[in-house]
Amino acid sequence: MKVNSKHYRTVWMEEQNVFMIEQNLLPFEFKIYKSKSYIDTCIAIKTMIVRGAGAIGATAGFAMAQAAIEADKNNYLNFISKAKKDIESTRPTAQNLFMAVERVFSKAKNSAKDAILEAQKIADEDAFASKKIGEFGNTLIKDNFCIETHCNAGWLAFVDNGTALSPIYEAKRNGKNIFVFVDETRPRNQGARLTAWELMNENVEHVIIPDNAGAFYMQQGKIDMMIVGADRIAKNGDVANKIGTLEKAIVAKEYNIPFYVAAPTSTIDFECTKGEDIPIEERDMNEVLYQTGINSKGKIETIMVASPNSKALNPAFDLTPAKYITGIITEKGIFTPNEIKNLAL
Amino acid sequence: MKVNSKHYRTVWMEEQNVFMIEQNLLPFEFKIYKSKSYIDTCIAIKTMIVRGAGAIGATAGFAMAQAAIEADKNNYLNFISKAKKDIESTRPTAQNLFMAVERVFSKAKNSAKDAILEAQKIADEDAFASKKIGEFGNTLIKDNFCIETHCNAGWLAFVDNGTALSPIYEAKRNGKNIFVFVDETRPRNQGARLTAWELMNENVEHVIIPDNAGAFYMQQGKIDMMIVGADRIAKNGDVANKIGTLEKAIVAKEYNIPFYVAAPTSTIDFECTKGEDIPIEERDMNEVLYQTGINSKGKIETIMVASPNSKALNPAFDLTPAKYITGIITEKGIFTPNEIKNLAL
Repeated sequence: MKVNSKHYRTVWMEEQNVFMIEQNLLPFEFKIYKSKSYIDTCIAIKTMIVRGAGAIGATAGFAMAQAAIEADKNNYLNFISKAKKDIESTRPTAQNLFMAVERVFSKAKNSAKDAILEAQKIADEDAFASKKIGEFGNTLIKDNFCIETHCNAGWLAFVDNGTALSPIYEAKRNGKNIFVFVDETRPRNQGARLTAWELMNENVEHVIIPDNAGAFYMQQGKIDMMIVGADRIAKNGDVANKIGTLEKAIVAKEYNIPFYVAAPTSTIDFECTKGEDIPIEERDMNEVLYQTGINSKGKIETIMVASPNSKALNPAFDLTPAKYITGIITEKGIFTPNEIKNLAL
Repeated sequence: MKVNSKHYRTVWMEEQNVFMIEQNLLPFEFKIYKSKSYIDTCIAIKTMIVRGAGAIGATAGFAMAQAAIEADKNNYLNFISKAKKDIESTRPTAQNLFMAVERVFSKAKNSAKDAILEAQKIADEDAFASKKIGEFGNTLIKDNFCIETHCNAGWLAFVDNGTALSPIYEAKRNGKNIFVFVDETRPRNQGARLTAWELMNENVEHVIIPDNAGAFYMQQGKIDMMIVGADRIAKNGDVANKIGTLEKAIVAKEYNIPFYVAAPTSTIDFECTKGEDIPIEERDMNEVLYQTGINSKGKIETIMVASPNSKALNPAFDLTPAKYITGIITEKGIFTPNEIKNLAL
């Protein structure tokens, strides 16, 4: 996608360095973060400088390749094995991370050069899958549709184009009139901050709504369909995605609103037979108790927005059972949750 | 309720002045706002210095009494009639406001003294109803219950004790072990700011959760019941309450979790045959796009938390159809939504 008329991927590798858009600063500052080591890249994943299923996957693959470059020949296998564990421990839920690390690690056993090529290939595949998801998803979108989305499963969450937003961009490019309701997506506001920023960049009409207002607009018949992303999909079609997805899926079902999940097949974990097997990351409670934004002087500032001395819980994802999901849009086509298991073959 | 060992009502009248706890500053500062005229009190309602169904009602009653004191004898009826309209136009959804203004206005036609007595009576009735709601609601609460609540229907939303929180306080006083999940309640965070602060003051164990996490904990069987307040109840048992209530009610139904509404009968609007007849207030979008809290220097500051140039929608309330509501806890007992119509007699 383009920012100030220049095309950017969200993450890329040049020599031993990994570059990524600093997503914690968006939409207030557009800045590229340069990571010089695999440990640095691990920290970037953990602190969410880079976030989103596909972008995490590609970044993790690059981190594994960095480790292979950094490894001393005498201790090569030990070093890359330890690095693999370090990278895998950054975020427990996103399937693409484990898939990418596994693939690059197995090539790294041959050479650092093979590792780099494989990491590059993963990033390219991710960008290609997003494009295909857009084409398939576009067939579901009618002219003048109002689409609700949760969190950010856009370009910023993948290497390019995104998943949930890719069909919207494709529909727009095909001349369809589209309006998007953007859930702000507390606690980290990826909707209000990132999705709204992307849609504005792409001239897609949209409005931010508090997460609490989803049912209100569904009840009024304002929403034609909902599209969200996924961080991991179990073999039975259950989906782990950003906290709040489950709530929206239940409400959408209640109002007979089609509820679609858009994700590349690399997000499917065929080892997980059902959603309950997917580990859910619990993040720091300060993400709920504090908020970051820009103050009246244009400076980024963090303020406390809750009662001091109270604690908070901050589960990052939830599990949406297959029964609430109308279809899963992948780069191989659109499937019912029940058909997902067949893709393993 | 007590703050720093001193008992406070949320709003009271002394001579021609109305005093109220400045709720926009809570929980960061505890300050009493003094309003010297009915116009000043209107602004306090509109800017949410005072908020919550019962507290708005009592304050509106006091404002009407202030107008009667301020009115010149030669233009008395014209003045108080105009004041009535001004007060009624502050917040469109809360039934208690219209009820209180109507009652005090009809006494004001006799004399300012009668108006003051009636306004006082409304405040006393509100405090008494909250106490009774606590006693009835307590019978529903078992030892070791985990209760979820949305927004603030506590002491701060009424003259004293509150509605949704009153049964919790009563259960606690009766020695029951209670744990409360507090929805933060975007966009104004009344849960994270006010409910959490009240519960801390009253030593009730609790935790703040993002609104998005409600379904997650319900799915895990962590929530035994949900209690919320109401801003207006239609004759058929449909309930207007803080935005997000509808979503929680649908999800609670899905997981067979009892969903209770606690409100005095003064919140029932027998003129409204169904929820769709209740007007829903749309508030300023900046309440969504900006957040207020305390910065690292301990000063109250407002920051922008969304993408600049994007717009937001900010409906303040939503309508929960009667079919999702297990029961309505009033000062006259606990009723099914279907039984509400009989209370008109």
